[in-house]
Amino acid sequence: MSDHAPWITYRPELTVLDCTIRDGGLINNHLFTDQFVRAVYETCVEAGIDMMEVGYKNSPGIFPKKEYGPWRHCYEDDLQRVFGDHDDAATGLALCAMADAGKSDWKTQIVPRDQSVLSIIRVAFYAPQVSEAVEMIAHCHAMGYETSANLMAVSAITEKEIDTVLKEIVPSPAKTLVIVDSFGYLYREQIDMLCRKYIKAMAGAGRQVGIHAHNNRQLAFANTIEAIILGANRADATMAGLGRGAGNCPMELLLGFLRNPKFKLRPVMQLLRDHIDPLRESLEWGPLVPYNLTGQMNCHPRAAMQFRASDDRDDYVKFYDQIIAEA
Amino acid sequence: MSDHAPWITYRPELTVLDCTIRDGGLINNHLFTDQFVRAVYETCVEAGIDMMEVGYKNSPGIFPKKEYGPWRHCYEDDLQRVFGDHDDAATGLALCAMADAGKSDWKTQIVPRDQSVLSIIRVAFYAPQVSEAVEMIAHCHAMGYETSANLMAVSAITEKEIDTVLKEIVPSPAKTLVIVDSFGYLYREQIDMLCRKYIKAMAGAGRQVGIHAHNNRQLAFANTIEAIILGANRADATMAGLGRGAGNCPMELLLGFLRNPKFKLRPVMQLLRDHIDPLRESLEWGPLVPYNLTGQMNCHPRAAMQFRASDDRDDYVKFYDQIIAEA
Repeated sequence: MSDHAPWITYRPELTVLDCTIRDGGLINNHLFTDQFVRAVYETCVEAGIDMMEVGYKNSPGIFPKKEYGPWRHCYEDDLQRVFGDHDDAATGLALCAMADAGKSDWKTQIVPRDQSVLSIIRVAFYAPQVSEAVEMIAHCHAMGYETSANLMAVSAITEKEIDTVLKEIVPSPAKTLVIVDSFGYLYREQIDMLCRKYIKAMAGAGRQVGIHAHNNRQLAFANTIEAIILGANRADATMAGLGRGAGNCPMELLLGFLRNPKFKLRPVMQLLRDHIDPLRESLEWGPLVPYNLTGQMNCHPRAAMQFRASDDRDDYVKFYDQIIAEA
Repeated sequence: MSDHAPWITYRPELTVLDCTIRDGGLINNHLFTDQFVRAVYETCVEAGIDMMEVGYKNSPGIFPKKEYGPWRHCYEDDLQRVFGDHDDAATGLALCAMADAGKSDWKTQIVPRDQSVLSIIRVAFYAPQVSEAVEMIAHCHAMGYETSANLMAVSAITEKEIDTVLKEIVPSPAKTLVIVDSFGYLYREQIDMLCRKYIKAMAGAGRQVGIHAHNNRQLAFANTIEAIILGANRADATMAGLGRGAGNCPMELLLGFLRNPKFKLRPVMQLLRDHIDPLRESLEWGPLVPYNLTGQMNCHPRAAMQFRASDDRDDYVKFYDQIIAEA
């Protein structure tokens, strides 16, 4: 054995981003109560989490306000109502929102940094949207925000496409480039290759790589650890893994793994008991068999989500036959 | 990126062992119906699985027959009743049982290989039991069985202790030495060290390393993949991860990952739907929060199992406080 046991020390520059509200909102149209959002916020503060992503800065034209809750749009009045008293320095927590290329009125929706409680904007995009993403990053940076480039569905594009995206993103002011395994398809060897590639591209002072994993194959936590081992310094997680389909890397596993004493697990236990478990009465997420299958097939979880909403929801054979036939 | 994509090819010598009945029986005293055991058997055959572990060869003195089902003892008449027609060559499946050091009447319970449907005996032991384990392996080998050495709870002993165990096991006729993460504590860097150490120790024709992972931290599948990447050639899994506490590496994930076309996932889907899901009405297993916590603490899941059986079963904060206080 090596004479080194890295699992009992920590890397101070590693930061944790909670995206419970943002990613979890994809299963309930972001119709969370203010009380729930506030409970997640307070948990993040108490648990020593570094960033909390409170929702999307997306267009009410595409996501009408009568169908979608405030955390799909993150208008400043909603942010003020729930986070009006927020103070980055006092809490050690930065607030963040995500803007999707193609789904965001970013030219008008994003106010200057000094007029918002947000300090970070993460730009999510598919490879063919990289040009808009670069404009969005430049705009958000000019407005005073820290920015992040989140290339989605990286498991579904070619290496040349990835390289082309990186070539466009590298000159941008994005501080972070995130490995996003939207379909929960990737496993260790693939994470390794992407991580090395992204870290090489983002070499330089003040720049870093992040990881955002989905749990279709029960690999979200493992892939997050793997990226951390290889040097990724920003890890996404959600409380109880709350998120679309199979969900995300569970915060309770991630904090239980990290050795930085600033992270506290007990507040997360409290949130799970008091606020997350009750959600399971009306919402479903986690690495259920249909999500295992879409993950293995490198597909969007859409088909599995529809299947779980159907009368045949537990007929795994039927779903297996369906996705094999459609492949 | 590398010019190699190992995830689309396979290693023919990699074999899969189903231990659903053996490990799953730890949550119901092995009181499975013959019909259920037979359904798992038929699934193993149809799915191309290489070995099925049908139970323990443990002592009815310690595990009385009135409390424990037949798969805790694996007497030949019970095996004959359910597997009497079994044929290794025709099915491609080998049957296996586990004998625990300290809990098995191995000198009398194990009949010669040619009088049994079993062809493999796996000897499970804690480090201080290695001397009995070596005797057991020699005995089972002399009786005609393929043998395996399964050093349990490896995460709870020192490197010198591991080295001492290996020194004793290496001269034995055990074909396989298995990395057993009984507490679901290990993660990738630890699996790597153990795997390299075990593979080095077991170098030589016809010998191999196996992996038996528990899912406390949702790492059972990831750790199984990791050991496979590093050259472990026998992987344990159970249907839907059925097993004590957090359960095991789920077979449906493992087969969905392996690329050997002999493995078929559809029969597993059928078993999950028709036989495993109904078990959930009376049995609980899986990576629930209390098991996350015992895994993180490198503890036996006992405390979490007791907690899940108590009235406070969902009070994660109470359980967290309890195990922190006891640590």
